Amino acid sequence: MRELGMQVSIDAIGNIVGIFPGTEDLPPVMVGSHIDTVRTGGLYDGNYGVLAGLEVVATLRDAALQTRRPLAVAVFTNEEGARFQPDMMGSLVYVGGLPLQEALETRDADGVSVHSELQRMGYQGTAAVGAPAVDSFVELHIEQGPVLERLGLQIGVVEGVQGISWTEFTVEGQSNHAGTTPMALRHDAALVAAQVAVFVRELTVRMGANQLATVGAVRLSPNLVNVIAQKAVFTVDLRNTDSAALAQAERDLHAYVAQATQTEGTRVSSRTLARFEPVAFDPMVVNLVEQQTQAMGCSYHRMPSGAGHDAQMLARVCRSAMIFVPSAGGLSHNVREHTEPVDLHRGAQLLLQVVLALANRPTDGPF
Amino acid sequence: MRELGMQVSIDAIGNIVGIFPGTEDLPPVMVGSHIDTVRTGGLYDGNYGVLAGLEVVATLRDAALQTRRPLAVAVFTNEEGARFQPDMMGSLVYVGGLPLQEALETRDADGVSVHSELQRMGYQGTAAVGAPAVDSFVELHIEQGPVLERLGLQIGVVEGVQGISWTEFTVEGQSNHAGTTPMALRHDAALVAAQVAVFVRELTVRMGANQLATVGAVRLSPNLVNVIAQKAVFTVDLRNTDSAALAQAERDLHAYVAQATQTEGTRVSSRTLARFEPVAFDPMVVNLVEQQTQAMGCSYHRMPSGAGHDAQMLARVCRSAMIFVPSAGGLSHNVREHTEPVDLHRGAQLLLQVVLALANRPTDGPF
Repeated sequence: MRELGMQVSIDAIGNIVGIFPGTEDLPPVMVGSHIDTVRTGGLYDGNYGVLAGLEVVATLRDAALQTRRPLAVAVFTNEEGARFQPDMMGSLVYVGGLPLQEALETRDADGVSVHSELQRMGYQGTAAVGAPAVDSFVELHIEQGPVLERLGLQIGVVEGVQGISWTEFTVEGQSNHAGTTPMALRHDAALVAAQVAVFVRELTVRMGANQLATVGAVRLSPNLVNVIAQKAVFTVDLRNTDSAALAQAERDLHAYVAQATQTEGTRVSSRTLARFEPVAFDPMVVNLVEQQTQAMGCSYHRMPSGAGHDAQMLARVCRSAMIFVPSAGGLSHNVREHTEPVDLHRGAQLLLQVVLALANRPTDGPF
Repeated sequence: MRELGMQVSIDAIGNIVGIFPGTEDLPPVMVGSHIDTVRTGGLYDGNYGVLAGLEVVATLRDAALQTRRPLAVAVFTNEEGARFQPDMMGSLVYVGGLPLQEALETRDADGVSVHSELQRMGYQGTAAVGAPAVDSFVELHIEQGPVLERLGLQIGVVEGVQGISWTEFTVEGQSNHAGTTPMALRHDAALVAAQVAVFVRELTVRMGANQLATVGAVRLSPNLVNVIAQKAVFTVDLRNTDSAALAQAERDLHAYVAQATQTEGTRVSSRTLARFEPVAFDPMVVNLVEQQTQAMGCSYHRMPSGAGHDAQMLARVCRSAMIFVPSAGGLSHNVREHTEPVDLHRGAQLLLQVVLALANRPTDGPF
């Protein structure tokens, strides 16, 4: 960012914003994404949107062009939520959806806080959170799913983001000897966790293709071959594009967990790790993306995003939308995550065109 | 042991044997158990049999009595198998059932070997493994189950040990984004692990009370809320007093795992962590325990052991049996493991009587 002549600021939750000046002192058009990753992640998730944003700025600078509005490239902290929940933490704090202090006090499974880790990394900055006010936000991202590849299309014009519900359950049973405890007398926390994982898969079959459910994390205690588990801590990730259906899935899940824990003679508690309603992006920006896609002669699909993204947080405070490029094999959160260079280039070109249209449009006027 | 005037030796797998001399130079009568514990274990599992053995020796010494045969008190290494498999490792090596070198090269989940840990602890001794030859072995132990308490009886006369089968399965699927991957395209290793845990509980219902099954340990990778698990490593502990039934349970398990992994489009491999056939103890020693129990006026129950014990290994090389005392609430492998002092005292008294009868009997004669 500094090499590109951008003015860089870092705020108290670690969000990095670089500003490339416009010809007028107006709120900037912002692009960007995140650069954190899940442990098994690949090269493109998040990084692509940030690097493409820098490429847009570099292109303008190399061509000695300046837009009417300034351009901002943002790097939002902890989008993945792999270690600290909720996910999309930096952008959520940025738009005022989570108090800064609460985010800083969030702790990981080992009790380490966001605050102390930001300090350790040297990334707790002094800039005011949420400044500057933003005109609009466009996030370029890999699809992270198989839809575009299966349809043989080049660009995803993203209309919104499905709702996300993350719940962590803690089931407490009774640890006992696996060889001497009759089956009928057991209170097996691991069994309840397993039953819930099987149930949520069945729930998705019953509710149809819009409902997704994943048990991705399970921790048993004491986690030994010959000891009935005293405790099981596990997460359930539910997603649906429909708000009412997502709420129904949550109710069904909690009812099943209550029944399964009672049957096994265990106890359960739960906490919400993240809960975001489905988000609809700004129709004018979505239409602008579609028009620019058509103007470039690209094939495309209007689609929802299955994953959560920083753009859904920015949508609370400014006109926002997203652009997807295909993911090979639909793989993401996987080291084999891949997007062809030609697709990466096409996405960045489209981002440039959309940014130019947004940044040069008349004040408060139509596109 | 040294305070009691015993001659202590430590062998190359860390087994500790203390000898209290008899009036004749004959193979010793051995008692003892183990002093390792599972992470959530209590005070009594193993330790009770070792301390009661020392109490028997102390009683003889205080009374200035000497038996015909020497007495040996043994402490066998790694009976639990919590960190290094198989369980009952020290006694298995002691009786020649597992080559010493193979046991020493066994590694834990972090790749640390038994050899290096014995060296670090200073418990890799120089005594020959399996020496001295033993006349007979009696192990006093808490029941670790609810049977004696439920029947309201004081002593368990243990006739044998149920068979044990420990298998570790590694299911490999495909890590992918939990929000963008349609359910039908998933290869979820965590789901297969959960399905197997649910299946083995159903298997025990179908096979009846003699069949036990436990999934006590599960490790997912990457174990994150929003990532479909790429890998699940989990254990299945199967036990049955009947050899053929245990083998049938193993076949049913493997058939189910194969079917579940295929349905989910995952791959599976497995390895046997421990496999011990049901063991019948020496009828003469079992009858001796019963006679001495009757002579003391104690109530008792002839029963199998649900847990594996070092005595089942010693049974390969000498006349062996076990004595159980009740476990409060049937709890074991639990910090709340408890046996009433009166029961502990009664068990040790019985051990003394059995040891005296064994150690003073005529050479190779009947009891």
